[in-house]
Amino acid sequence: MYLTQSLHRVVQRDPHRPFTEHGGRVLTYAQGVERIARIAGGLRDRGTGPGDRVALLALNSDRFLHVLFAVPWADAVLVPLNTRWSPKEVAYALEEAEVGTLFVDDAFAGMADELRDSLTELRTVVHIGDGEPPADAVRLDDFLAEPLPDAHRRGDALAGIFYTGGTTGFPKGVMLSQRNLVVSALGFYAASEVATPGVFLHSAPLFHLAALSAALGAVQLGFTNVTLSAFDPATVLATIQRRGITDTVLVPTMIQMLVDHPEADAYDLSSLRQLTYGASPITAALVSRTRARLPGTRLVQGYGMTELSPLATVLQDADHDDPERRRSAGQCVPHALVKVVGPDGAELPPGTVGEIAVSGDHVMLGYWKRPRETGEAVRDGWMHTGDGGYLDGDGYLYVVDRVKDMIISGGENVYSAEVENAIALHPAVAQCAAVGVPDEQWGERVHAVVKLVPGGELTLDQLRAHCKERIAGYKAPRSLDVVEELPTSAAGKVLKAELRERYR
Amino acid sequence: MYLTQSLHRVVQRDPHRPFTEHGGRVLTYAQGVERIARIAGGLRDRGTGPGDRVALLALNSDRFLHVLFAVPWADAVLVPLNTRWSPKEVAYALEEAEVGTLFVDDAFAGMADELRDSLTELRTVVHIGDGEPPADAVRLDDFLAEPLPDAHRRGDALAGIFYTGGTTGFPKGVMLSQRNLVVSALGFYAASEVATPGVFLHSAPLFHLAALSAALGAVQLGFTNVTLSAFDPATVLATIQRRGITDTVLVPTMIQMLVDHPEADAYDLSSLRQLTYGASPITAALVSRTRARLPGTRLVQGYGMTELSPLATVLQDADHDDPERRRSAGQCVPHALVKVVGPDGAELPPGTVGEIAVSGDHVMLGYWKRPRETGEAVRDGWMHTGDGGYLDGDGYLYVVDRVKDMIISGGENVYSAEVENAIALHPAVAQCAAVGVPDEQWGERVHAVVKLVPGGELTLDQLRAHCKERIAGYKAPRSLDVVEELPTSAAGKVLKAELRERYR
Repeated sequence: MYLTQSLHRVVQRDPHRPFTEHGGRVLTYAQGVERIARIAGGLRDRGTGPGDRVALLALNSDRFLHVLFAVPWADAVLVPLNTRWSPKEVAYALEEAEVGTLFVDDAFAGMADELRDSLTELRTVVHIGDGEPPADAVRLDDFLAEPLPDAHRRGDALAGIFYTGGTTGFPKGVMLSQRNLVVSALGFYAASEVATPGVFLHSAPLFHLAALSAALGAVQLGFTNVTLSAFDPATVLATIQRRGITDTVLVPTMIQMLVDHPEADAYDLSSLRQLTYGASPITAALVSRTRARLPGTRLVQGYGMTELSPLATVLQDADHDDPERRRSAGQCVPHALVKVVGPDGAELPPGTVGEIAVSGDHVMLGYWKRPRETGEAVRDGWMHTGDGGYLDGDGYLYVVDRVKDMIISGGENVYSAEVENAIALHPAVAQCAAVGVPDEQWGERVHAVVKLVPGGELTLDQLRAHCKERIAGYKAPRSLDVVEELPTSAAGKVLKAELRERYR
Repeated sequence: MYLTQSLHRVVQRDPHRPFTEHGGRVLTYAQGVERIARIAGGLRDRGTGPGDRVALLALNSDRFLHVLFAVPWADAVLVPLNTRWSPKEVAYALEEAEVGTLFVDDAFAGMADELRDSLTELRTVVHIGDGEPPADAVRLDDFLAEPLPDAHRRGDALAGIFYTGGTTGFPKGVMLSQRNLVVSALGFYAASEVATPGVFLHSAPLFHLAALSAALGAVQLGFTNVTLSAFDPATVLATIQRRGITDTVLVPTMIQMLVDHPEADAYDLSSLRQLTYGASPITAALVSRTRARLPGTRLVQGYGMTELSPLATVLQDADHDDPERRRSAGQCVPHALVKVVGPDGAELPPGTVGEIAVSGDHVMLGYWKRPRETGEAVRDGWMHTGDGGYLDGDGYLYVVDRVKDMIISGGENVYSAEVENAIALHPAVAQCAAVGVPDEQWGERVHAVVKLVPGGELTLDQLRAHCKERIAGYKAPRSLDVVEELPTSAAGKVLKAELRERYR
């Protein structure tokens, strides 16, 4: 199984089905494959050989998807770059992955100019935007060449290097094979009741593997792919109605913005059959608001990480109406095994918190140029996720915390997620995080960072009193900072590492 | 992905779900895994090492399924044997595959006695029946040992040797890997709207890969597996009602026996949500009779061959109501590519008949000890099926004939399937085959072998007149033999090779 395989299959059965749509631009699968083969021809003509790295730094667009498939078609390796990174981080990844060709859109034309001089390996910059190209860049139209036959790059061959982390310290490149990516994307559908191609909306950033995997799955099944350059609730609502969107992937924050949008009721959203989300569980309140706005839409949560290509567990629609299971990440996907292990690596019984470990054909090949970290993470075929959690007796996985987000205060382990769940119940709190900060008395103390609802007020004493009713006293925050905004990743996760750095 | 992986997953989420049911015997998944681990322990204790071959010669039962999973659990390789074979054929396969351990049930206890003396490699015979064991055989209860931990035999490791052919000439052993088998079994569900576990009825012979793959898929998804030792329409009808069967696999002949059974209407068959069939397309008449008897049941056809683990294409339920598509084998499964090639290996355009070729992670590792035949069949990752066919513009595959079943008469290619379709329309014909027999004038002549309906009559002149209204004159049979029964394989296919032999 491999990325480009699906293109041949869809062209065989449905060549005139729209493949990509962006703004007014529509390409059928037949036209898309022609375009992909011509981009691949351009890569080959300009010296890209088997296994060479090709980076992509761009907002969502049809061209993002064309490059995504052109790179394996040319037997090369994709390096999708985080659109929130600083030029320094981008330069680090380009250099470490020895990238020879970089595709950029209008949003990153300026950054490409900055980067060009400092990088020795970078031979070619290709501009896939419509505006002014960066200096020395090739316009996509000039880059297109004679169509190249598909290299059918497959199996264990490296498909991409996906950088994770990076907000503190240097990011690590996760090496995923062709099989890794397709097993994860197709495995999602093997566990899903949705198996017929529809119209997929890609508004979450595609460089992020959760969104990218959704796109790979959608193409495996022959969906039409509608791209929006960024998530904007009003545009998403209008697009669902106008294009009859059937499936999409979001994070809970985005779902909230959609269903709470003042004009949500003005749109016909009945085409939406499945809404998949990741990054964090969903609150009971948001489930009921979503059920009210989208009565015919299945809610599905995926949990995983880049190292797992990315899917490990899925919470099905029906599980959302169970107050206990709704807090879980669901059950293991058909292509994997999940277990929880102690510090000694031994499997723990249900109900006991430990480190979540996952095995299967979707476990990464390793970290790029980091054999030591690879050996620590992948042991005997099991990816040790660094996430703390437990399984219940029915195989539902509860993620309690990142192991590195755990706070050790007065010798006690405090799971920050447990603290956050308590804080979040306070009516004045809109968003929150709990991190460990150095403390002379406690080693680390629990520190709360809170964004208030409009007009909300909260003192440390009020917060501590509120928390102590819900969790053990030693877990209640000992300090509080009220902020305008919490730092979040492109995927909507609160960046705990950045907060720890800030308060250190 | 591998065979035993699913067992761990199901035990994690639903340990008390019934795993196997045979007669009054029920084992839950937790109990089944314990049993499997103990059979695996017995294998290890008696010297079965990694990659050693273990054969299974038995009718369908729960114990068949336990052995099926115990063999990879012990890191060994399964050799399921055709229950219709002569002792000579069984001995040939046991010897060629260097089988050290043979599991037999009551039906084959006698044959085991015959075989024992002539085979040097065969160390252990294990009796999984309830009657008198063969001489020197170990009873299953005595064979069970301390539970062995799962070897997690996976990926490209050899999972089984599946013998095909064998009714004339010597059978060939198809080597399938763990990944081959699971990709095919799970790929079926990735293309299916049925994704929740139900109760699967196994009445078609499990040694045949189509039925065995269905069992693997059912266990991957956590189905309950009800086994019947053989197909009997009345028993199947009663079992569907009694056990609320949701899914089953049959061949069209079996479907016919079910829906035409005089007491079919007396049973509540409403639990049956999906009926998968293979071996041959289904007639329009049988589709409408099936729709009438089983209004809520999805009909799904799978086409493939042992060398493809076995699935290549699937005809979905809705396609059965289209008179053209119903005659096809459906469209390519998500894990494969299908093309039609000419004698030079070049891909042919839609509508042109040639040899069907298939690629994907489900293509066999090769033929056991036959590197030359492997190299001829699998070229550049494509399995050349030996089946003739064409694709239409929508990617539907029409299988016209086995290339070796093609008749060359007077220099013209005659596809036997086309002739058979014409003969079958005659009201006196119950079942038929067309084969080429040596002929001085024509090189080969088209010879018809026909089984008549009760009270039916047919002369050669009548048959030729009937056929000439439907197909070209040179395709009409030039000789006719009316028989009581046509020779068929366990899967219900007419054995053309045997007929050719008979009339040569």
